[in-house]
Formats: sequence, structure tokens, C-alpha cells
Amino acid sequence: MDANPILAETLRGNWVENRHRGAFAILDADGGIIAAVGDIERSIFPRSAIKSMQALPIITRHADDKFHHSAKELALACASHHGEVIHTKTVDAFLERMGLTPDVLECGTHMPTNPAARAALRAAGEKPSALHNNCSGKHSGMLSVALAMGVSPTGYVGREHAVQVAVRDAVETVIGESLSEGKCGTDGCSIPTFAAPIRAFAFGFARMATGRGLPENYASAAQRLFDAATSHPHLVAGTGHADTLIMEAFGGRVMQKVGADGVQCGAIRDKGWGYALKCDDGNIPASQAMLAAMLMHYAEPDANQRAVLENLARQPVRSVRGDEVGLLRAAKV
Amino acid sequence: MDANPILAETLRGNWVENRHRGAFAILDADGGIIAAVGDIERSIFPRSAIKSMQALPIITRHADDKFHHSAKELALACASHHGEVIHTKTVDAFLERMGLTPDVLECGTHMPTNPAARAALRAAGEKPSALHNNCSGKHSGMLSVALAMGVSPTGYVGREHAVQVAVRDAVETVIGESLSEGKCGTDGCSIPTFAAPIRAFAFGFARMATGRGLPENYASAAQRLFDAATSHPHLVAGTGHADTLIMEAFGGRVMQKVGADGVQCGAIRDKGWGYALKCDDGNIPASQAMLAAMLMHYAEPDANQRAVLENLARQPVRSVRGDEVGLLRAAKV
Repeated sequence: MDANPILAETLRGNWVENRHRGAFAILDADGGIIAAVGDIERSIFPRSAIKSMQALPIITRHADDKFHHSAKELALACASHHGEVIHTKTVDAFLERMGLTPDVLECGTHMPTNPAARAALRAAGEKPSALHNNCSGKHSGMLSVALAMGVSPTGYVGREHAVQVAVRDAVETVIGESLSEGKCGTDGCSIPTFAAPIRAFAFGFARMATGRGLPENYASAAQRLFDAATSHPHLVAGTGHADTLIMEAFGGRVMQKVGADGVQCGAIRDKGWGYALKCDDGNIPASQAMLAAMLMHYAEPDANQRAVLENLARQPVRSVRGDEVGLLRAAKV
Repeated sequence: MDANPILAETLRGNWVENRHRGAFAILDADGGIIAAVGDIERSIFPRSAIKSMQALPIITRHADDKFHHSAKELALACASHHGEVIHTKTVDAFLERMGLTPDVLECGTHMPTNPAARAALRAAGEKPSALHNNCSGKHSGMLSVALAMGVSPTGYVGREHAVQVAVRDAVETVIGESLSEGKCGTDGCSIPTFAAPIRAFAFGFARMATGRGLPENYASAAQRLFDAATSHPHLVAGTGHADTLIMEAFGGRVMQKVGADGVQCGAIRDKGWGYALKCDDGNIPASQAMLAAMLMHYAEPDANQRAVLENLARQPVRSVRGDEVGLLRAAKV
């Protein structure tokens, strides 16, 4: 099998130091290929990049009918949030409205992604809770699905639990492929993650962006989730994060979500295109540079949007003293 | 140019998630190639992996005659230490013996690499100093060279400063190649780093291990530095680090040093071989897995040494909750 092309590299001084290979696909909702770079049939773990797909059962399984999720709560269900106060407070209030406490979250606990939030927690002498886990919004959404389905929330992260069966079914419905136990693992937040071709995820995001080819309830659910995420970009990631900056700049035109280990998925909504990108080695900054180059080429950015993308496509490498000593840069797409 | 081979990959569940390419060379001191995998003529930045080469002027430029460096101080000159108390205390005392204070260090300041040292610093409400910089031992050694040469230490990190000219000259002497301004950058700790072929660094370490082909003062200086580093593996890195564990296990047979962005250099001393390895994408854990597989194959490990290497060649990937959900593993070499 041929190697994927080098889509980003770091320079130190005047010499290339690191090379990052990758692949991406942009598809329309009929399965037409707008762009294909590298091996787009390779199955990848989408990780958190498909949280909006995993959130579909909130609406299709009627949790929303029961709990009337706000747009902010839906945005957090699609989020890898940074553990800032607005994130944890919103998730906590939602859990409380469902009559639950953070103890029921099975995602595990880690320090907030946001440096100021980490410092504040340390200064207060507090330990992080599961609310600070970047996935706590997604997990709260899954808990709402459990309650709406009338099943016990305990063990909701398990592959056989009704919630995860519903999530798997939703992902299969939008990507138009069966997910297989033969290409399955456990995500960082303990839920299952299934590998599928890059092409299939891009196709799924195109169908979510347009509703084309989807059952009507899925089409409207997808639109509501994308509207929620793109209306509240800060809730989907956090201060200074690429996803937040991109969605703020594109004002609803682009739905963008990172996944761990160098995955980027989303949709150029006004064109009706979905995309999926994977950096072979899992490097996230490199995958962001690749994403930025891709969006510059295909998303018709205006000057402001282009400025945001250029900052991601060319990221300074600094010495410990803070001097700029190199550059992570995307290859021209 | 063909892509380097995949030398490590991560599995999540039952499916490959990330792929890491790389190259390595093992040479003897006559330039004979013991092993060559991937493009060993590619010029790489060696970064901290050649600190023992950069420490040679301590001896060849008579700083040692003036300050009588202890073996521990020489080990720290070759180190990327973890900022534990034993590291910072030893560097601090050495600076004091030279009549200097930590203010003169130009490496910049970062939190200790060791998590317990970080926690202790935070608990004490203290900020890190330049002593905690993993390179503070190397920089102290360079300061001793400045004083021995009778030049001002100020600006000793600069490419044109007499100390860095001496360091460059020492590296060129052992690797047997000229370093070029056309392949040069600034390292994280603000000193120059020059790119050269993987093969050349492996050759240089073989010559340092054997003394063969080197001027006599270089040969004895190299032996003293390797003896110091392999006698004090904890000073060269820190608690739990691969370099420390490998050197402890091999009891003087292997000199091993990591460099930032996935470089590994060293020598299998009893065989008279030097090696250099670079993970294309700069991933350090992956480079450690590659290194371990290489040493398993070429360094004739005993059972204890093999156990240490196997832990590096197969590293668990964990969920936030701490469950083992995947594996970073080296390809069979």
C-alpha cells in the first residue's frame, strides 16, 4: 500500500524537521467526491470528531421531547469542551434538570483543557470532577437518551448498552455503512468507537448538512445539532481553540469538530459538502494545519475566515524562551 | 523519494489507529553499516540526543582542568534531566562553584518534566527557575567552557559565540562531516542545532564509544563522558524515563539519549557500535518503541534488559479512567 502524502511538516530554522502524512475526503450528499487526497478508503477511528452523529439519538430517540434540550445543551453534546466555567456549569445544570448528579458520568476525570481553568482549579485547591472531562456534555446527552428510553443509565458507556446500540445505529444510518465489531475500540471517555472509511464519514457529514438521503427525523435532528454547534462555537471547544475560531469566523457556514489522534470532520454547509481528515500519526496541530489548508482551498473563505485559517496553516514553533525558531506548515493542497 | 517504513503503530481495540514512520542506522567506528532501515542519508536535527557530543569541549577545551567536573556534573552536561531535586541541586552547586548564579543560564524556564517535582513546586507556591530546564546541566557545562576559554559567558547560546563554535567543531570532529549554515536551526534551549545525516550521527557515536579515528584527547573525553552518563543514568533523565531505565539495565554497555521530536542516539559500547534513529513525525513514545525494538535485535539483551525493552516496545494506551484500551507497539525490526 502506498504511503499517504505529506500534508504538513515542521521547519526548524531552514530545514525540515518533522513530516506528517494524512488523507482527507470531501463528498457531497449523493456520494460524489469533491476531493480525495491519500487513501480515503482506509478505515479510521473518528473519535470525538463525530460527536454530532453520536448526539442524533437525543432527538431521534425522543430525549429532547422529554427534557427540551436547549441549543447550548445540544452544542455541548457535540463538544470536546475545555472545562471552562461556562462548560461545566451548563453541563451540571442540565444533569440537575434530569435529576442526576455528576457521579453518574462514566467518562472519567481529567484536568480542564483550558490552561486558565486548570490554574483556577489549582489555585482553589480543588480537584477536577467528571464535569471537567471534555466529553461531559456528550455523556450528559447520552444519559438523557437512557432516561428517555426508560433504561438504567448505569453502564451506559458499554458496547451492549441500549444507549450505545442507539448511537451505533445513528452513525450507521448517516454514514450509510455497517459498523463492525472487527474494527472497534474503546474511546478515551470509555464509549465504543468504530472505525470506518474516511470517505464514509465525509459522506455522513454531507448528508447531515443537507438532510439528503436521511430519514426525515434524522435530517431535522442533524440540522438542529449543526445549528446549535455553529451558533455556540465556544461551547463546542473553548477559548482560542481552532474549532471555535473556525466556526465563529464562518458564522454557520462551517461545522467543524476535532477528534483525538488527528481527526477532523465537519461540513461546508452552504455547499452541502461533508469532510473527514486523518493525520496518519495522530498529531493534532498537524491535522489542524491540514484542515486549514483544505478549507482555504474548498470553503471559499472571505478575508477574515482566511486569516483564521492561515494562522492554523502556519503555526510558529517556539523555543522555551518564546522565540520563534520554526514553523509547522501545511503543504499546499 | 520513497517513504520511510512504518516502525511503530498504535492499536485501539483491534484496529490500527496511528502509524509512525522512521529510519535508523547502526554503524561501527570504521563506517561499516551494521543496520540501515529507511533513508539513513536524510539529514535530521539531532537535538538533545547529541548532548554528549556537545559536552566534549568541557574536556577538550580544558574547562575540566579548571573546574574538575565530577562524574555527576558530566552526566548532567549530557542530560535532559527531569527537574528533580537531585538534578537542580547538583546544577546549582556546580554554578556556585564556578562563581555563577542561575541567572546566567540562557536556556529559558519551564516546569520540571517530573510530575512529582511539578506538584512539589506548585504545592510550595514556587515558580520554576532556569535550573528546572531539562538542559540546565548542558548549559552549565557550556558556561564552564566559556570561563575556561576566557570569554564572556553572556550570549553563550549564540551561533557565533566562541562556546558554540567550539561545540560545533567538536560535533564535526566526531561525526566526520562539516555542519552547514544551510541546515541549521535553533534548539528549544536556544543553542544552535545543525542537521546532518542519520548515518553520520551513528558513526560519531561509534567513534565516541571506541575512540577509533578520533584525536586522543577526544577519545579520552568521549570515554569519560560515556562512563559518567552510564554510571549516573538517573541524572541523564529521571525517575521512570526510558533512557534511565535502559542505561540502568545495561550497566554501562549502552549509552542512550533521547532528543526532542523523536530522535534517539547512543552506542552499544561493548560492540563498538553507534546508532541514531529518527521518528519522521517527531513522536517521542513511538521513537522509544522503535529504539527498544532495535536494541532487542542488535544489543543482545539479557532477560532483565529484554524486559525493560519490551515495556518500551509495547506501551499501553489508556482511557481517561485508566483502562487499557490500546497499544503502541514497535514493528518487528
